[in-house]
Amino acid sequence: MAGIKLKNISTKAPKDTNKAKTKEKTEEIIAALDELQNTMYAQHKHSVLIVIQGMDASGKDGAIRNVFGHLNPQGVLVQSYKVPTAEELDHDFLWRIHKHAPGKGMIQVFNRSHYEDILVTRVHKLCDDKTAVKRMRSINDFEWLLQEHNNTSILKFYLHVSPEEQQERLNERINDKHKQWKYNESDFTEAKLWDEYMKMYEDCFEHCNKVPWHIVPSDNNWYKEYIIAKTLYDTLSGLKLRYPGLKK
Amino acid sequence: MAGIKLKNISTKAPKDTNKAKTKEKTEEIIAALDELQNTMYAQHKHSVLIVIQGMDASGKDGAIRNVFGHLNPQGVLVQSYKVPTAEELDHDFLWRIHKHAPGKGMIQVFNRSHYEDILVTRVHKLCDDKTAVKRMRSINDFEWLLQEHNNTSILKFYLHVSPEEQQERLNERINDKHKQWKYNESDFTEAKLWDEYMKMYEDCFEHCNKVPWHIVPSDNNWYKEYIIAKTLYDTLSGLKLRYPGLKK
Repeated sequence: MAGIKLKNISTKAPKDTNKAKTKEKTEEIIAALDELQNTMYAQHKHSVLIVIQGMDASGKDGAIRNVFGHLNPQGVLVQSYKVPTAEELDHDFLWRIHKHAPGKGMIQVFNRSHYEDILVTRVHKLCDDKTAVKRMRSINDFEWLLQEHNNTSILKFYLHVSPEEQQERLNERINDKHKQWKYNESDFTEAKLWDEYMKMYEDCFEHCNKVPWHIVPSDNNWYKEYIIAKTLYDTLSGLKLRYPGLKK
Repeated sequence: MAGIKLKNISTKAPKDTNKAKTKEKTEEIIAALDELQNTMYAQHKHSVLIVIQGMDASGKDGAIRNVFGHLNPQGVLVQSYKVPTAEELDHDFLWRIHKHAPGKGMIQVFNRSHYEDILVTRVHKLCDDKTAVKRMRSINDFEWLLQEHNNTSILKFYLHVSPEEQQERLNERINDKHKQWKYNESDFTEAKLWDEYMKMYEDCFEHCNKVPWHIVPSDNNWYKEYIIAKTLYDTLSGLKLRYPGLKK
């Protein structure tokens, strides 16, 4: 993904996509996912790590709620990464991440992730380029570790919204009672750093792409949810999951 | 350390070493270590990981008790790795290790470690050569991570005893009331696999040596303790530790 330019990638559903039909397909896929997940849990061999990254108001919480909220919570864990705690800062940046790597049979969702350590930190000059290069190397090593040593399939999603869509959603947060709890004055300050964020995301896509990134057009939530569900479905379908039968 | 042959390396203190004087020196070093450790704790910048490996009855427990037992326990943690639990087996082999990586200011001692996953497991054919190569790669990546991202100094000690000394110590366990709790019938079966263990250790020293191994002649406990204390002392002395002064 060298030389990728996010502003050249559409943030919208392709023009000929039918919203109602897509939503119907998403529902079907989620029903099928439920069965696949149950099989994976029973087989106790594979695991899935789902990394969700995106700008403020890109719809990370909604994606998690609408795609994973219909699966058996016994087999799905969600971990949200916020500003590191004092204990977390006492350790290397992957310490708090590795802790929550999925066990066999599990789907682990990361709402933000180790990628923040080469995104927000770089934008705010808390991480220089030399440190970022080291972190990228260790991120690649870490993802390889999970894949090679614990049969973990890793899916990385970048929820791609336009700055205009973001502004609209941030403004909504001020007026909608159900969304006010998400409002944070600093979101608008962060939004001004848009170009800088895009640059860091592009750099990340270029250098941490041994496990490929899925850039999900996310101005339309129904389309974003479809893509995430479909990608997970394709992945699980490729694992040759099966119920293990009676224990010998 | 390519082509190293353990049987060509002495397991005894060098001939001209004076036992009484060495013990005195060890005591002095440990007193100095206490001060260095306190400074490191206060400075809250560096950390130390000490990996102790060795055959049964090579004196791992004694080394920990006698060298680290005199330091402030607030700054020293010991983690013993036994047969993995079900939860640990659900994850990659470094999951249970990374959890206990030292925080800033701390000394973390591992009594056995991630190296068991390329030692006992290989001897018992639970890990094939291909898996071992992958594990070695991830071990090297992991140690690099701790060094580069959290200022962790890693000291790896192999407590080198002769098979004759081991037999003597295992027999002692049967008759000494203070040691009977350590007796395990299977130790004698394991001891028969001596040559196989040496082969796996030699392979480990060859391929996981980016952080160098210290092969400690351990037939004489007083000499073993001296070497470990001295190596730690030299390491901490090299860190330019200093009290940080008043917070600004």
